[in-house]
Amino acid sequence: MSKPSITLRDMGSFHVGGRIVEISGKPETTVTFSAGGVPARVDRNGAYLVEAMYVQYFLPEARKGKYPLLMWHGGGLSGVTYETTPDGREGWLTLFLRKGWDIYNSDAVERGRSGFAPPDVWPGEPHFVSMADAFIRHRIGATWSDDPAAREPLPGNLFPLEAYDNFARQFVPRWTTTDAATVAAYNALIDKVGPSVLLIHSQAGGFGFPIAQARPQMVKAIVAIEPAVAGDMAQAARLKDVPILMLYGDFIGRSVRWPAMRQIGLAFADAVTAAGGDVEVLDLPAAGMHGNSHMMMMDRNNADIADLIHDWLARRGLVA
Amino acid sequence: MSKPSITLRDMGSFHVGGRIVEISGKPETTVTFSAGGVPARVDRNGAYLVEAMYVQYFLPEARKGKYPLLMWHGGGLSGVTYETTPDGREGWLTLFLRKGWDIYNSDAVERGRSGFAPPDVWPGEPHFVSMADAFIRHRIGATWSDDPAAREPLPGNLFPLEAYDNFARQFVPRWTTTDAATVAAYNALIDKVGPSVLLIHSQAGGFGFPIAQARPQMVKAIVAIEPAVAGDMAQAARLKDVPILMLYGDFIGRSVRWPAMRQIGLAFADAVTAAGGDVEVLDLPAAGMHGNSHMMMMDRNNADIADLIHDWLARRGLVA
Repeated sequence: MSKPSITLRDMGSFHVGGRIVEISGKPETTVTFSAGGVPARVDRNGAYLVEAMYVQYFLPEARKGKYPLLMWHGGGLSGVTYETTPDGREGWLTLFLRKGWDIYNSDAVERGRSGFAPPDVWPGEPHFVSMADAFIRHRIGATWSDDPAAREPLPGNLFPLEAYDNFARQFVPRWTTTDAATVAAYNALIDKVGPSVLLIHSQAGGFGFPIAQARPQMVKAIVAIEPAVAGDMAQAARLKDVPILMLYGDFIGRSVRWPAMRQIGLAFADAVTAAGGDVEVLDLPAAGMHGNSHMMMMDRNNADIADLIHDWLARRGLVA
Repeated sequence: MSKPSITLRDMGSFHVGGRIVEISGKPETTVTFSAGGVPARVDRNGAYLVEAMYVQYFLPEARKGKYPLLMWHGGGLSGVTYETTPDGREGWLTLFLRKGWDIYNSDAVERGRSGFAPPDVWPGEPHFVSMADAFIRHRIGATWSDDPAAREPLPGNLFPLEAYDNFARQFVPRWTTTDAATVAAYNALIDKVGPSVLLIHSQAGGFGFPIAQARPQMVKAIVAIEPAVAGDMAQAARLKDVPILMLYGDFIGRSVRWPAMRQIGLAFADAVTAAGGDVEVLDLPAAGMHGNSHMMMMDRNNADIADLIHDWLARRGLVA
């Protein structure tokens, strides 16, 4: 590797938030946890700690970002979104670390290292992401084939198609009934690390915007990568002092849902702007950057987009 | 923080292994993934990539370990086991990184960032870890109380009791029917990174020993922290050239299952030794280190135990 080294003043992880639930009425059982192991009598009743959130942090020796940069992933995914790309290039976690940002990368409640709760704690069943589903919904290709050689990208698509299976390895199940718990955990994270810049992707629009509206003094900027959900239109003025950058990629006109989802984002941006806010909506193809999927932090030009975001943050005075 | 900085020549993550399963016969459904979002028609049939394993790596600039150090956690847990301790001290991941080891820390199949498979792919239901269950089974205390102030540690116990709730935040559900998939994924990891030193905890005894017996040339040493399962006694001679260190903590005589589990480990150690192998079994209390729980990588003396392991590896010629 000829990459420059990375020097950290600290790194580690913690969990925030969560609550204790009491399970009762289950019969005692015997579990042999590992083949060849010693059977254990297990009482499944009692206290379980659920809805905590896993956060991993990397703090560069040469800090330049004035506030922590919190990376919040989208639905069906985990913090792995921001790590090494599926084809092995650097992801935004290390790219922004190299730019001098204190990084806090989390797994939303019920995803990844945050774990999930026993049955009946949350309504409904988890939703699993199929290979076809993500391929089409994330605007990588218009149709799916189980045969890798037959998978056609949208023309000019910059997602690393040859590594799509590695992307599918990152998919994690998700519930659709845990938004309040997730918002609580993200608030606990902000309580712990203080005023922050939020980098939010897709589903996390539904977490980042409402949290910033509830406590705008704790959010120094929002970078929203194709937010699937926006904030409360009636409360748009609460973001008038929180600079917002919204990025949209290519091929949205070819998608069933993305035109409507972008429209929700644009309407919210207009409302915040009308209230005196500083919102920049960057339609990447209109700005001459063609070919980005919904997973632009993994696309072949992900470093260019990271530069663009960092420069925008610097222009807002958030880089020392 | 007055900790010395950490300089990395590289860091990142990847997934290894897994297989594609085809789900069929499910009706199409409509899912509104996020409150306020645009409903999506979702076909739940088709290809899912399951049983891959998440691996995160940190490679120090000043490398001293001659081989990668693979950290394999125990049941009901994830790679978080080796990160910052529940009370915020450094865990073995950074302690061994500072000693110059290339670290590969993974989440076993179906845990954490490895994700879990749709229903019916694996037999049985996931097992959830209650706060009481881990407290007693991991030999932190003999009895449980929901009231933190009333939780009594075993006398002299070194687990950071005041942070027990943070430990409970790390618990993740686990299946008991995925051992073969996990062994396949760990083998895929070794295929990728080459000959390695294995640091295995608890359940991972059932993965590390059989893998080393199947391909001893790829395993340069095994450090087994209270393995819950040992290898195949009939194949003990296959480990005659793989140095093994087994560590056992305190309070085993007070446990229901640990006397039998330790006995399985000791019998296996004897068999490998009889076949000409180099096995050191270190009973920590007998060596004058009292108070260790099953989670000794989190106990208050975790840095002392890391030193002891590193020195043992150095004496086997595995440190440059």
